[in-house]
Amino acid sequence: MPETPVETGGQRGYLRIATEEAFATTEQIALYRELLEEPGVDPGFQSLMGFYINSTAERPRFIFENLQDLGDRRIAEMDARGIDRQVIGITAPGTHVLDRDRAVALARNANDELAAACSTHPDRFTGMAACAPQDPLQAAAEIDRAVSELGLRAVVYNSHVQGEYLDDQRFWPILEAAEALDVPIYLHPNTPPADMIQPMLRAGLDGAIFGFGVETGMHALRIITSGALDRFPRLQIILGHMGEALPFWLYRLDYMHQATVKSGRYEAMRPLRRGAVSEYLRENFIITNSGVAWPDAIDFTQRVMGVERVMYAMDFPYQCPVEEVEELDRMDMPLDAKRAFFQTNAERVFGLAQPVDGGRA
Amino acid sequence: MPETPVETGGQRGYLRIATEEAFATTEQIALYRELLEEPGVDPGFQSLMGFYINSTAERPRFIFENLQDLGDRRIAEMDARGIDRQVIGITAPGTHVLDRDRAVALARNANDELAAACSTHPDRFTGMAACAPQDPLQAAAEIDRAVSELGLRAVVYNSHVQGEYLDDQRFWPILEAAEALDVPIYLHPNTPPADMIQPMLRAGLDGAIFGFGVETGMHALRIITSGALDRFPRLQIILGHMGEALPFWLYRLDYMHQATVKSGRYEAMRPLRRGAVSEYLRENFIITNSGVAWPDAIDFTQRVMGVERVMYAMDFPYQCPVEEVEELDRMDMPLDAKRAFFQTNAERVFGLAQPVDGGRA
Repeated sequence: MPETPVETGGQRGYLRIATEEAFATTEQIALYRELLEEPGVDPGFQSLMGFYINSTAERPRFIFENLQDLGDRRIAEMDARGIDRQVIGITAPGTHVLDRDRAVALARNANDELAAACSTHPDRFTGMAACAPQDPLQAAAEIDRAVSELGLRAVVYNSHVQGEYLDDQRFWPILEAAEALDVPIYLHPNTPPADMIQPMLRAGLDGAIFGFGVETGMHALRIITSGALDRFPRLQIILGHMGEALPFWLYRLDYMHQATVKSGRYEAMRPLRRGAVSEYLRENFIITNSGVAWPDAIDFTQRVMGVERVMYAMDFPYQCPVEEVEELDRMDMPLDAKRAFFQTNAERVFGLAQPVDGGRA
Repeated sequence: MPETPVETGGQRGYLRIATEEAFATTEQIALYRELLEEPGVDPGFQSLMGFYINSTAERPRFIFENLQDLGDRRIAEMDARGIDRQVIGITAPGTHVLDRDRAVALARNANDELAAACSTHPDRFTGMAACAPQDPLQAAAEIDRAVSELGLRAVVYNSHVQGEYLDDQRFWPILEAAEALDVPIYLHPNTPPADMIQPMLRAGLDGAIFGFGVETGMHALRIITSGALDRFPRLQIILGHMGEALPFWLYRLDYMHQATVKSGRYEAMRPLRRGAVSEYLRENFIITNSGVAWPDAIDFTQRVMGVERVMYAMDFPYQCPVEEVEELDRMDMPLDAKRAFFQTNAERVFGLAQPVDGGRA
């Protein structure tokens, strides 16, 4: 930690709200350690959590230790990096690798723990709810509890559930609950599933360097092209890592989607009510720059998606250089757009201007 | 075809050279028809060529018919679209799905056929050589023949060969030949291999809409991170479809590559001589906008890669709206940059200013 903390607060005309920040519970780590010992463990999980839990290298040790703190240590790390508020969710792959009963228990306990921390630090922490998609109706009930009773402000969804995706109607109670409660779903990366990961894994490309983006970009596309957002038209989905590159693919997505639908090539790809993939991306998605502290890509995405749909995220503790926010403060961007990026979009998306309901805050 | 052809020639200050244009030989189509009947056919090949060969929809019929012409019909389609010159290669997946002997014969025959067409239309056609990577030494010899004797100006490489990639040293004679002959390799998409395609295929996302970019972006990354370009530092690789989004991923690629190498997470990902992935992307790659007739993405890529490394491609006959080039003529871009994009980069990369050696042109 540097000696002089980066200044926080409104001196520069905006607060800095970081919107894809991670934590892990002690129970979660214990469950992961057990799972890593089981035969036939998912190769992506083994690659990812086998590394973060067991590596002795400096970066994974920093990450692993900071994931497990929701108190003064985290506040100090935020102060050191100039972050006014973190929006926090359970780290990937969350509950998604567990069996139904363990997943249900972990989601419930993690939400209680996160809500308690948010209650202790209401000016610094905002929480996103975990759920257990293995039981979609129970997941919907837990999301309702976490939002209505605990005051959490979003759902964090750690992408595929043992190879299954939200375009599958079996999971639609989760989408329905989020839409009804008016909370966004943060679609967070997972490593690609077993029937997709091998060529990436063999080359060391299965994780954040490449595989995450592929897996989660595909997941978002599946949600769009399946028609799920025709069923839940008000649902808002947050995509990190500069939208997993979907904003950059926009032209090709529209062209090829239209051509594919027109030719009747796939039963799974039927016409959409609003026509173009880009309509859904611009009306149902919010993009964060987690992992991409790069003004060129932020500027491009603001132009493609609109200034109101691009938010700041740090990705603490995975990627959190101390100098990051001051570099982004210097972006060549009008103050209004910078305030939207760092502060006001997050306030709107997570409903931070409203008082938190539920008893704890 | 419209009644009034788009003007060609230098009236606007540049020629329009389209650099990722496709053809198919009669032999190739016959081999594909046979392969589609075989048990256990690759699922990506079946999805792609089963569609283009058998669909009765308008777009695949147009594509299928135009792929097989290298004569007056193609010239007329170019005239209708304002294309002065096509740089032509065998359509995906080329030889890559065949057994060794069929692949060797197809590459040789396709190169002869393409060279003959280039000889008939030296002012309109430039050819890229096929090869049979199933036999890397023979492939290197065929590339040498195609360049030195037939006057072809590049290698078109249709990505994975039944799940194998150019980072595998077994294929390095191909890289060595291209570097020694000073011709670029156009790394063209293929559908993802069998151990990667399933979650995309089930959703109709395995082709040009998404799977192509994933497969070929990964292939390019594998070439970089394996160190192949430390061994062949002068090799130039062309990536279509706006670099398969790698320019947009640049910041994350550099950050995560550095972090991964430093932690020693993978045996397959060791330090690179030039350090950053972006160094290789900017020194060993040229990007085309095939399939992405979108000024925003072209502008972004010119800024990231440099104006000298972004070229025009139409992707005829797969994606060739008649109005495309006139829309791109109107891009807000200095004339010098536009000339580089449409003409002079291609002339440099394919050596078009030099007279074609070999007896035929």
